[in-house]
Amino acid sequence: MGTGALPIAGSFSVVLDGYKEPRVDRAVQRFVRDLSQETGMPLRYEAVNPANATLVVHADYPSKPIQEVSEDESYVLDVSTSGAKLTAPNALGIMHGLQTFLQLVEITPTGFVAPAVHIEDSPRFPWRGLCMDVSRHFISQEVLKRNIDGMAAVKMNVLHLHISDDQGFRVESKEFPKLQQMGSDGRYYTQVEIRDLIGYASDRGIRVVPEFDMPGHATAWFVGYPELSSGPGPYQIERRWGIFDPAMDPSRESTYKFLDKFIGEMAELFPDAYFHIGGDEVNGKQWDGNKKIQDFMRANKLKTDQDLQQYFTLRVEKIVSKHHKIMVGWDEILGPNMPKTIVIQSWRGQDSLAAAAKQGYSGILSSGYYLDAMAPAQQYYSVDPMANADATLTPEEQKRILGGEACMWVEFVTDENIDSRIWPRAAAIAERLWSAQQLQDVGSMYLRLEAVSQRLELLELRHRSNLGQMFSRMAGTEDIAALRVLADAVEPVSLQIREEDAEKAGGIQTNDTPLNRMVDAIAPESEVGRRFSELVNQFVASNFQDDQVKAEIRALLVSWRDNDNRLRPLLQNSYLLKELSPVSQSLTLLGGAGLQAVDYIEKDERAPDSWRNEQIAVIQQVQKPAADLVLAVAPAVQKLVEAAAGTGAKK
Amino acid sequence: MGTGALPIAGSFSVVLDGYKEPRVDRAVQRFVRDLSQETGMPLRYEAVNPANATLVVHADYPSKPIQEVSEDESYVLDVSTSGAKLTAPNALGIMHGLQTFLQLVEITPTGFVAPAVHIEDSPRFPWRGLCMDVSRHFISQEVLKRNIDGMAAVKMNVLHLHISDDQGFRVESKEFPKLQQMGSDGRYYTQVEIRDLIGYASDRGIRVVPEFDMPGHATAWFVGYPELSSGPGPYQIERRWGIFDPAMDPSRESTYKFLDKFIGEMAELFPDAYFHIGGDEVNGKQWDGNKKIQDFMRANKLKTDQDLQQYFTLRVEKIVSKHHKIMVGWDEILGPNMPKTIVIQSWRGQDSLAAAAKQGYSGILSSGYYLDAMAPAQQYYSVDPMANADATLTPEEQKRILGGEACMWVEFVTDENIDSRIWPRAAAIAERLWSAQQLQDVGSMYLRLEAVSQRLELLELRHRSNLGQMFSRMAGTEDIAALRVLADAVEPVSLQIREEDAEKAGGIQTNDTPLNRMVDAIAPESEVGRRFSELVNQFVASNFQDDQVKAEIRALLVSWRDNDNRLRPLLQNSYLLKELSPVSQSLTLLGGAGLQAVDYIEKDERAPDSWRNEQIAVIQQVQKPAADLVLAVAPAVQKLVEAAAGTGAKK
Repeated sequence: MGTGALPIAGSFSVVLDGYKEPRVDRAVQRFVRDLSQETGMPLRYEAVNPANATLVVHADYPSKPIQEVSEDESYVLDVSTSGAKLTAPNALGIMHGLQTFLQLVEITPTGFVAPAVHIEDSPRFPWRGLCMDVSRHFISQEVLKRNIDGMAAVKMNVLHLHISDDQGFRVESKEFPKLQQMGSDGRYYTQVEIRDLIGYASDRGIRVVPEFDMPGHATAWFVGYPELSSGPGPYQIERRWGIFDPAMDPSRESTYKFLDKFIGEMAELFPDAYFHIGGDEVNGKQWDGNKKIQDFMRANKLKTDQDLQQYFTLRVEKIVSKHHKIMVGWDEILGPNMPKTIVIQSWRGQDSLAAAAKQGYSGILSSGYYLDAMAPAQQYYSVDPMANADATLTPEEQKRILGGEACMWVEFVTDENIDSRIWPRAAAIAERLWSAQQLQDVGSMYLRLEAVSQRLELLELRHRSNLGQMFSRMAGTEDIAALRVLADAVEPVSLQIREEDAEKAGGIQTNDTPLNRMVDAIAPESEVGRRFSELVNQFVASNFQDDQVKAEIRALLVSWRDNDNRLRPLLQNSYLLKELSPVSQSLTLLGGAGLQAVDYIEKDERAPDSWRNEQIAVIQQVQKPAADLVLAVAPAVQKLVEAAAGTGAKK
Repeated sequence: MGTGALPIAGSFSVVLDGYKEPRVDRAVQRFVRDLSQETGMPLRYEAVNPANATLVVHADYPSKPIQEVSEDESYVLDVSTSGAKLTAPNALGIMHGLQTFLQLVEITPTGFVAPAVHIEDSPRFPWRGLCMDVSRHFISQEVLKRNIDGMAAVKMNVLHLHISDDQGFRVESKEFPKLQQMGSDGRYYTQVEIRDLIGYASDRGIRVVPEFDMPGHATAWFVGYPELSSGPGPYQIERRWGIFDPAMDPSRESTYKFLDKFIGEMAELFPDAYFHIGGDEVNGKQWDGNKKIQDFMRANKLKTDQDLQQYFTLRVEKIVSKHHKIMVGWDEILGPNMPKTIVIQSWRGQDSLAAAAKQGYSGILSSGYYLDAMAPAQQYYSVDPMANADATLTPEEQKRILGGEACMWVEFVTDENIDSRIWPRAAAIAERLWSAQQLQDVGSMYLRLEAVSQRLELLELRHRSNLGQMFSRMAGTEDIAALRVLADAVEPVSLQIREEDAEKAGGIQTNDTPLNRMVDAIAPESEVGRRFSELVNQFVASNFQDDQVKAEIRALLVSWRDNDNRLRPLLQNSYLLKELSPVSQSLTLLGGAGLQAVDYIEKDERAPDSWRNEQIAVIQQVQKPAADLVLAVAPAVQKLVEAAAGTGAKK
């Protein structure tokens, strides 16, 4: 931090210096547009005398035509009271530095400014990705683009498209058009759209890695090409969730001929050096039940299904290499004789990754980064790809851990709520992958996450606004203040509980199931819950003396206690809200219990054990999930009750 | 209204019957997408057995390839508990009927439904337009498109693009490329984009009428082609607002040659039968100061500038006709010898329109429909193109009044706030132009306007969400509850006062002036102000007996009284909020005055005259505009004060 700040006025200007390439020019154009958006000032990007420029942007040398994983992404940003300079080896650092500049801008009593700073910045890991499943629900081009904008804002650099699975084959193949024609319900990206998307990402310093999952997770391929599979067919697009039997037939040469042609086509469409072949979750049932395959295994001395998959993967690796790509796959692809060039993406964990690194394989971490698990940001933030690696891996081996990828699996996610499932939590993962390992302050992280979240909505992400619309839709009115009070106090149950609940209810979840319930609309993490918990901790820490904190606690508790009465008419009018009735009553109970606790504390009177036990029983009861929701505020209410009973009199 | 309702379930299906054309098919595709959005159910549009279809759509005959003003737009919609049928002569009625269906859908305790109805519907006027100025500030293609969606939702059918003016020439000309190259700051629509836009509008039953304003309002043309003008040049793009001297030179044949070629090019680009040549606000100064033009006038016996403009307009009309278009222009184009085929768009009023109709001219009303005047919806709603026409015009003459256009002039409007300046108020004008003249219930209008407003946000219009972002930007935080309380209680001053204020402040408003102040961010009409005023009226009408109303009034008054304290820290931290300090204090004063009044009333005690006079003085004082805002809640507070002093004791 320096002293003072650079004013951002209508005369703000940028000059390009050093090596010039169109990508940098477009990045500066976007920067000026975004700065204009941040300030509400109509800024123009036009030629000015370099001596008068507010910001000088200097790249040393060209970036690679196809972005490489090893490219230098560092930058140096100097802001003084009179001007700013951004220097980087190449376009990638420039893009990152421009994002940092945008983050620095703030409003003050005298105008918008960027504080004086000297920043030397570079990422800890070269692979900072977001894996988006676009198969289980189709995610539109427009939504992908705004999420790419979000990724660029938090300096992520890999968009991994999980582009085919049992539920949909989402890209146009000209060689095998039945893939998309029969395997997508008409919801796929044309090759023109893919090229456009890759250009859009490349312009923002983001590589696009396609994943075509094989030999399992491939039902959608078999609808048009049943001969690829190990079963008799015919096939239909799978609409349920889970692990299914269909798998490619590794015993037939025609399978590899098909894949050679197909991978050749896709290797050209996707210019990135890496090509992801999935490889996860093959249950082997089709192989076990196919006599020819069993014969083949015997003839080739392949004892287990795992051996057979290894055989398949080795053959596929040769094809991928032939088309000048580096193969990436999930943990399962690793096995004997696999060339050291491949990359393992681990859903199993850091130990699996470290083991691979010891064997000479590069890897990226996704275990712990599954956004669909609906965990709080701090949990993702605490997961480090190098956990324990210092102790167990040599520096050489450590370098093989390339980074990580947040994963957005979309069983319960659509265009409408995907932004809120990714953002702002993915920003916490982005920071983990960019910044120093010892950066662990959760309080600071949440403060900055809030600022990032606000910026992301400016970038047209709809992680907040779309949810409001979903609330209004459920209620049939925009007068939803009471619904918001409830929505702010709850969180979705874990994915596992949600799946179990659906099963218990006898309903099979498919991609035709409407995702229009409260659990689909609320944010994964309750900000009010976190805030209330902080307040209670502060209250306890102040030995119950902090009156302002007490007032805030009371206000929240009162709003909960009184909410069920206000909310009931809405709940009665909507079939989508009916299921919230017990949750709403529980919140009212919690509000009442918390208020009684505060009363005891205020009167400096120790609450009787019988009261305490009653309240705890209530709290335990209301903490059981209902409507696939949990009350995020319950644990802190329990803390208040315990305090009133145990330490309330101990001022 | 029938009995019962049609359930809208995941099995909802549509079948096309009768005459089929791609435009109808695409309309149904969008309908299914919108219905899916409204319900959160993943509906698909696919072939089903007609006998099983939920909705049967039947068009009798083809719509015109180029939409015509005289086309039948009627439709009949039948919804029963078991199915629905939409019938229309052609695609236009189908589109309108589908929008009506979407409006009918509501959530109930048992699911989404459309109530059973029989609707026979057709528009009162064939020309229901929105005129958008895209010159003074450039409005992007994306924003135009979402506004076209809004227009379609309220059954408007003409997008009038005011595409050139002193401040910018916004379309690509291949014949005269310096028009956009030098006259637009690079902000114009390419011909490809225009074709795309017209196709988008046509798909939604909306004609696109271009306006190229001439001979005045044309500075932007002269930057590249000074020889067209009546002055010596050179010219720069005008950045200020107002009426300027530059005008085309009507005395030179080269002007008409240019226009012939130009209009020929644009007549091809814009397929609509109508072509708008503006014609307004020529101050004649350049003509008066140009000796050649004065000689020309004498030689041609043109006595006044008006005569000269008439000469020009007649020449231009011949060119427009030659290119097979019907000329439209503002009031000023009307004069002797003008062919009866032309259409007058009136900014002067219904009398001007009626006078023209008597002379045989067709006309459309825009006077009273200027959205930039920031008037409340009910004011626009009260303006009828046929006001008094029943009495003064023959049926034949009445038919010449084709309808009206809402006008969005954009001196103080950008991409960011344009949605909120157009919506939802334009919907009130749309209803005026579609529905029966005797429909005048303002209360009902506002109820329905709220429902429409909610639907428009679902259509991706950002008239509400963008404003929230602007508040956050001004405050530098998302914690803006106190700012919202103030924002909800104020309205922008009239355009005229805003312009005067800018002048007094010595600042010249240009299109470089940031539009990021509170006055730019708030909605044109205060919903809270309207609500509060209703409450006070109800309270008075109940003879002060309605306790629930009283409680609501009190709650609002308390929130205002206490707001300045809460808001002050925000105001101090932002240069954009500083100017709100007096407004915030005024709101607190109003809250206090209102509460005292309610206290007197409650105590059944007549407030002393001295108190009353003091309060009235305060209220008068705070009603003076500050920061270009007025307190929308002041008049109702005054009513409370008067009630307390005059009638408070008269229970």
